[in-house]
Amino acid sequence: MYGNWGKFLRVNLTTKEIKVETWDEELAKKWLGSRGLGIYLLLKEMDPKVDPLSPENKLIIAPGPLSGTSAPTGGRYNVITKSPLTGYITFANSGGFFGAELKRAGYDALVIEGASEKPVYIYIKDETVEIRDASHLWGKIMSETQETLKKELKDENIKVAWIGPAGEKLVKIAAIMNDIHRAAGRGGPGAVMGSKKLKAIAVRGTKDVPIANKEKFMLTIREKINKLRADPVAGGGLPKYGTAVLVNIINENGLYPARNFQTGVFQYAYEQSGEAMADKYLIRNHPCFACPIGCARMNKLPTIGVTEGPEYESIFALGSNLGISDLASIIEANHMCDEYGLDTISTGGTLATAMELYEKGLLKDSELGKSAPPLRWGNTEVLHYYIEKLAKREGFGDKLAEGGYRLAKMYNGEQYFMGVKKLELPAYDPRGAEGHGLGYATNNRGGCHIKNYMISPEILGYPKKMDPHDISDDKVKMLILFQDLTAIIDSAGLCLFTIFGLGPDDYRDMLNAALGWNLTTEEYLKIGERIWNAERLFNLKAGLDPKSEDTLPKRFLEEPMPEGPNKGRTVRLKEMLPRYYALRGWSEDGRIPEEKLKN
Amino acid sequence: MYGNWGKFLRVNLTTKEIKVETWDEELAKKWLGSRGLGIYLLLKEMDPKVDPLSPENKLIIAPGPLSGTSAPTGGRYNVITKSPLTGYITFANSGGFFGAELKRAGYDALVIEGASEKPVYIYIKDETVEIRDASHLWGKIMSETQETLKKELKDENIKVAWIGPAGEKLVKIAAIMNDIHRAAGRGGPGAVMGSKKLKAIAVRGTKDVPIANKEKFMLTIREKINKLRADPVAGGGLPKYGTAVLVNIINENGLYPARNFQTGVFQYAYEQSGEAMADKYLIRNHPCFACPIGCARMNKLPTIGVTEGPEYESIFALGSNLGISDLASIIEANHMCDEYGLDTISTGGTLATAMELYEKGLLKDSELGKSAPPLRWGNTEVLHYYIEKLAKREGFGDKLAEGGYRLAKMYNGEQYFMGVKKLELPAYDPRGAEGHGLGYATNNRGGCHIKNYMISPEILGYPKKMDPHDISDDKVKMLILFQDLTAIIDSAGLCLFTIFGLGPDDYRDMLNAALGWNLTTEEYLKIGERIWNAERLFNLKAGLDPKSEDTLPKRFLEEPMPEGPNKGRTVRLKEMLPRYYALRGWSEDGRIPEEKLKN
Repeated sequence: MYGNWGKFLRVNLTTKEIKVETWDEELAKKWLGSRGLGIYLLLKEMDPKVDPLSPENKLIIAPGPLSGTSAPTGGRYNVITKSPLTGYITFANSGGFFGAELKRAGYDALVIEGASEKPVYIYIKDETVEIRDASHLWGKIMSETQETLKKELKDENIKVAWIGPAGEKLVKIAAIMNDIHRAAGRGGPGAVMGSKKLKAIAVRGTKDVPIANKEKFMLTIREKINKLRADPVAGGGLPKYGTAVLVNIINENGLYPARNFQTGVFQYAYEQSGEAMADKYLIRNHPCFACPIGCARMNKLPTIGVTEGPEYESIFALGSNLGISDLASIIEANHMCDEYGLDTISTGGTLATAMELYEKGLLKDSELGKSAPPLRWGNTEVLHYYIEKLAKREGFGDKLAEGGYRLAKMYNGEQYFMGVKKLELPAYDPRGAEGHGLGYATNNRGGCHIKNYMISPEILGYPKKMDPHDISDDKVKMLILFQDLTAIIDSAGLCLFTIFGLGPDDYRDMLNAALGWNLTTEEYLKIGERIWNAERLFNLKAGLDPKSEDTLPKRFLEEPMPEGPNKGRTVRLKEMLPRYYALRGWSEDGRIPEEKLKN
Repeated sequence: MYGNWGKFLRVNLTTKEIKVETWDEELAKKWLGSRGLGIYLLLKEMDPKVDPLSPENKLIIAPGPLSGTSAPTGGRYNVITKSPLTGYITFANSGGFFGAELKRAGYDALVIEGASEKPVYIYIKDETVEIRDASHLWGKIMSETQETLKKELKDENIKVAWIGPAGEKLVKIAAIMNDIHRAAGRGGPGAVMGSKKLKAIAVRGTKDVPIANKEKFMLTIREKINKLRADPVAGGGLPKYGTAVLVNIINENGLYPARNFQTGVFQYAYEQSGEAMADKYLIRNHPCFACPIGCARMNKLPTIGVTEGPEYESIFALGSNLGISDLASIIEANHMCDEYGLDTISTGGTLATAMELYEKGLLKDSELGKSAPPLRWGNTEVLHYYIEKLAKREGFGDKLAEGGYRLAKMYNGEQYFMGVKKLELPAYDPRGAEGHGLGYATNNRGGCHIKNYMISPEILGYPKKMDPHDISDDKVKMLILFQDLTAIIDSAGLCLFTIFGLGPDDYRDMLNAALGWNLTTEEYLKIGERIWNAERLFNLKAGLDPKSEDTLPKRFLEEPMPEGPNKGRTVRLKEMLPRYYALRGWSEDGRIPEEKLKN
């Protein structure tokens, strides 16, 4: 077997049993690896109805067949588990160096089962795998954890994934972090890890990933790297300004959400743009493993020194969506989320929900605690103060720690939760990109942009420019292509940003060269479709009600956009959703027919 | 000689000469010590017309006769020098531990003359006095400087006074700092130290201060400490909430300045009050040497960790006066000022001037530099961004580094500078306390509150409550008493906050017991008057024009307060000033008659 090792680790934290198990090429041709392997194992081994924070939930951490190779962006891994936030599947993706290191230790996945009684961490050095005491790490923030582990293991080169205080406290929007500033963030995987009392996974891998046709592979990836370098986004905007290059673009297009999505135009967007960041705080880029793009920012602030990020989504979530313009405070808040181990989008989304509940009078000062900062739009102290409280579940933070949906419900303001399937929405108002809105409504992990990034055709023009208010079958088909293709990119162990420069055939080329296969692009997309349907199946078995849950917040369906280029627009979801089901080959009520399931 | 040693150190940084000189009890009975000794030496030895940043200016650092003793608050020292900001005398006072340590090394003062070519620091350990190379410390912020010096001198117990990057760059509002978070701040003494290329003074003193009548002294100070502990301010509000206890009080009285003194009521005052700070960020108090009050705050923020401060004046300067409510950002900004070595009041005052120039359209975005944050009221990024630029004289920061007066002049908006004699005003709108306004206008170091703290009688009721809008002779006499008494408290080496509990007779008791004297309260106040007049004489010789400079910004004389308890009020300075001159025994044009000078 090439690309994949055909081996994965199974660690049971209840029994402390450690096993190496195998899987074969036949399965790989159905599921590819990583995200695909994860949903395959979960569906096979686990009842989707388990309590996500019980020992019965499994946490799968998996690099892909191209992870740890020199394929461009080949440093990524996925976390696949049942989300405590949504109650459905989540597959959270992260970069940095950890994923490549785990792959190079000789494993295609790490399947974590059961739960320890006391805090532990897992140490992997190639064949050596140990469960170790982590009592001394419990409560520590990210930078301290890394420092301690490097000293303790006497190895400057170990790569670590871990949870912060938020994951320990079972905060429903807690992330699994790696390399300090990289997050597998969405859907609360950090809380799953916390429920297993697993503080960290420290890995050192020294093996070369087996490649079927090395020379062909090297030539192929050289060609793909050149394509990426020549692209104005992957080789221009992203390296120069990071993902924050989007701030001005999305704002000018009138879908940059401000004040909990009350509008799609933020007066002070420029101040928090990638351009402003580069002028004010940027030191240099900090690329992930094997990445020729290098979008990650290293910034320096006089208060906290050098830090990484924030990404575009975090700037929106901790900035415009709270009415905050101050980029320095946003950078600090992003740093705090990293240290405590929080998903920035959900953290900001939850705070935005709280602020609108406060604005509408449903949430009162008396609820916030003595002297707590008022939840006024634009009040930067909201960041400084509540993020810590949320991460530690202190005072009102205990309610915030449940995420925006549950918070809104506590205060009878469900209409002020801007999310889908309980997951807080990212930085695009769907009234300005209706295909993207259909993506939110149908995404298997809930309100997520990255698994069906329709902003790419609707705003940026990749692979071709489509009218954001076109809701024809072409648009729906493009969405399905994006969903299936992204499942392939994730499962391969690559970064979605390669779509700025590469197309479906390029992924086929790299995978065929590495794996020694001869599949067509269509056959790969079939794998992507299989993964998407399997995830949908998991959700349906977990209790998903498509009628009430494949939808968007009322605001986008009923309140016309108040200003800007999309003034007067809503999302015509009802007109698109039945055609999406049909083009997917699903039933009219969003379920998967028996014959499809056989695949 | 008791209390004082009768010895001071003279260090010439041009010639590298170090001398111990003496002074005697006859002089002490005229000048007491510290601030009094400083103005005596300056008048005797230096032409008041010298360029403050030339080697001809002298920098005098002097503890008082009660410094280093167990008298309550006996840990203070003064810095006496010609100010590069005002062009007149400044006497900046600081607490912590440095002053007591210098005194216990056996010296009543350190007189620094000339200027070094290369960066140096002075090391004093009792009789050992050395001028040492400081090239490796140049450019370092406060915490790094202290860390390096402690290691280098292999002494955890040294106490250090120093300048930060701001002083090195001759920023006109740079402070001399000690014990990291204590500042001799007002009037830019840090720039004088920087002009001499003197980075730091590290001191270790092991001697007991000679006390005339030890038993009587101990009984006396015990009585005074009890008085302070029993006082509701010194024993209640200050220890509990720090100086920030004033935020709510001053705001409720309608003189808490907001948006460059455009109004005296700040909507969000409570959020930045001492009460809110105690609830949100306070860890514990951190008293200075021998202090039973302990007003200093140790706060902890998730971003920067543990820090000290901010004081009430800093909260106003970096908060309400910039329209900023966010206490966390204010704490961070205060921390930055400490690390860079900046006077917080003047830093905030200069930024407030810039913000009003910006509001009024005199200062344009194009002046601020590419992507610099706009100078909008309430924009917390103004703190994060411009304080660093100011401290390092980078870009537009080079103009800010000149202080508010010169900045306003550059942009033809002198009326928007809220200061007196080029010194930025502290946190009390004089339209709400007219006696305090007369104090601003006549203070020898310019727009300063602490050398004639009329807020005490006019708002707080110490030693008795006076109507803040009474402008009778009683009020003017109270001001003169406060000026003369404060000169005594400063020169003794005590803290002004002892006035909350102690009266003129109490200082007499402590001084007589320590010094072995038998002076009456009136005789001590005479010393205070002498010091005040000597400082005035220095200013007159330096070129002070009383007619144009013993005044207030037009805003307070002509624009009625727009809202709150003082609505419609201005300061009737013209009605008070001639009577102040007369009661001082000065001429009608504010000069000191020949016969007074003989004293």
